[in-house]
Amino acid sequence: MIKVGILGYGNLGRGVEAAVTLSEDMELVAIYTRRNPSTVSVKSNVPVKSTEELDTGKEDIDVLVICGGSATDLPEMTPKYAKLYNVIDSFDTHARIPEHFKNVDDASQKAGKIGLISCGWDPGMFSLNRLYATAILPKGEAYTFWGKGVSQGHSDAIRRIDGVIDARQYTVPVKDALDRVRAGENPELSTREKHTRECYVVVEEGADKARIEKEIKEMPNYFADYDTTVNFISEEELKKNHSGLPHGGSVIYTGETGFEGNKHVIEYSLKLDSNPEFTGAVLTAYARAVARLNSEGVKGAKTVFDIAPAYLSPISSDELRAHFL
Amino acid sequence: MIKVGILGYGNLGRGVEAAVTLSEDMELVAIYTRRNPSTVSVKSNVPVKSTEELDTGKEDIDVLVICGGSATDLPEMTPKYAKLYNVIDSFDTHARIPEHFKNVDDASQKAGKIGLISCGWDPGMFSLNRLYATAILPKGEAYTFWGKGVSQGHSDAIRRIDGVIDARQYTVPVKDALDRVRAGENPELSTREKHTRECYVVVEEGADKARIEKEIKEMPNYFADYDTTVNFISEEELKKNHSGLPHGGSVIYTGETGFEGNKHVIEYSLKLDSNPEFTGAVLTAYARAVARLNSEGVKGAKTVFDIAPAYLSPISSDELRAHFL
Repeated sequence: MIKVGILGYGNLGRGVEAAVTLSEDMELVAIYTRRNPSTVSVKSNVPVKSTEELDTGKEDIDVLVICGGSATDLPEMTPKYAKLYNVIDSFDTHARIPEHFKNVDDASQKAGKIGLISCGWDPGMFSLNRLYATAILPKGEAYTFWGKGVSQGHSDAIRRIDGVIDARQYTVPVKDALDRVRAGENPELSTREKHTRECYVVVEEGADKARIEKEIKEMPNYFADYDTTVNFISEEELKKNHSGLPHGGSVIYTGETGFEGNKHVIEYSLKLDSNPEFTGAVLTAYARAVARLNSEGVKGAKTVFDIAPAYLSPISSDELRAHFL
Repeated sequence: MIKVGILGYGNLGRGVEAAVTLSEDMELVAIYTRRNPSTVSVKSNVPVKSTEELDTGKEDIDVLVICGGSATDLPEMTPKYAKLYNVIDSFDTHARIPEHFKNVDDASQKAGKIGLISCGWDPGMFSLNRLYATAILPKGEAYTFWGKGVSQGHSDAIRRIDGVIDARQYTVPVKDALDRVRAGENPELSTREKHTRECYVVVEEGADKARIEKEIKEMPNYFADYDTTVNFISEEELKKNHSGLPHGGSVIYTGETGFEGNKHVIEYSLKLDSNPEFTGAVLTAYARAVARLNSEGVKGAKTVFDIAPAYLSPISSDELRAHFL
């Protein structure tokens, strides 16, 4: 049995908890929290412990799944715990991946452990599909579309506006752009042409809706480059119709082969009822790979690019060849 | 530069030739044929040699791409040349994969070489997607649909019927079945419910079309279990409208996570103008991986399941992390 610890018990931590529980070759040994453990109640029947216990380096776990935020948590936590345990995270600040990789690599090389970073679906499964497609068809172009799905970052940005009680933001791919890419047109698409943003906003009584709508639509980086629609709804409506965290999207790659330029379209798409649960399931499969590879003596920082697919599955290689190939 | 040899110069061999030519880190050094080399003219500017030269074991190649048929060629050729070179094939007789793997493993282990079998898109990329999806969502179901595309085996089977001059058979997925699977219904689908077969047949003058149509539709294994349509057309029409070798299909995986049973759909789909050129491109990317892994000391039989994705790409790991993750 592969012994798994989870650090952080938010949506992602709960997703990992559920996925590990479903894995017959894995055992969840503890959930670690920075909060007072007695205040955290978990769904599975495992102890909740303080991160202080983790800091001793003596916890009996084969791999620690670090479920923190990319902005401030993971850049600190992953290198810190990579000195003590095999670790895996879902670091998704694309621009800072090389730096994060180096920090984790330094720590885990010294410890003789593996630190797998930036796992999930994007970065993660989408990255894999960009790599596979480009390796197969070097003459071609990759397009990534996200949604329809909830962007937590954009929802949070709306919540910070004065007069807003709650908000949910959906990223929606533009159908016409999708169709053109799938048809092999290789279009140049601006940010605005690829995705729209749909906002559902609950405001305080008497709030200035016109001002709030303007603030949302003109918010730099988050909304200004997109066609954004703002819908003001009641708190009840938000709860009833927008409480899930669905997401998904597509990596579409169009490329050509041969002396006559034959065209090919490769598409990988996800439709997810729950973004954190799916991400947690991906992390769990890679946690299995991390534990196995380290037991074979492999160490250092890794990404999904470095992991042979067979390591993700509890099924034996003989069975995989006989039934999955 | 990775030095590549191609054994066999049919459609697939030509696909590999084109793909290697497009790869800046690979050099095609020779095409080997069982025919008289002087009768074979190739598109690239490389020597055509007899397989007898290959048999010496002294050809200066890092990897040999074996482009033969699965029925009789590959079960002999791949183990034979695995004793002498790194090899890769597209063996696709699913039921015989374990036996073929063992034969190649015995040969390549002894030789200190790698023999990668069953590469292409199915088996190959489709297999990978079945594996990844099952590893992420153990509670779920995989569906594979093929087409719309030309099945060479079925076209050949029609050509063997008395009175038939030429034929082209398309495998077509049933839209209603695709829709139900994508909607997450997890339907039980019979062979007939998943695919139909469309045949375009050129017959001799005065041939008994009713008898030919009946023979096609009742042919066991090939057509009897399917709804099959037979269209009699002229030789000119066959050339004009059915001379390509398009194919494709989808692996659709529906699974669930979490304590509330959230649903997820993962779909990988291919739309290929040329089946042999795309297959050749996949073989070429994996040939790169084979040469690299062997230079690191890895040996024995492998499948796509055993190859970490980064090995397929000529792009450095730093660049991959910075731009593809």
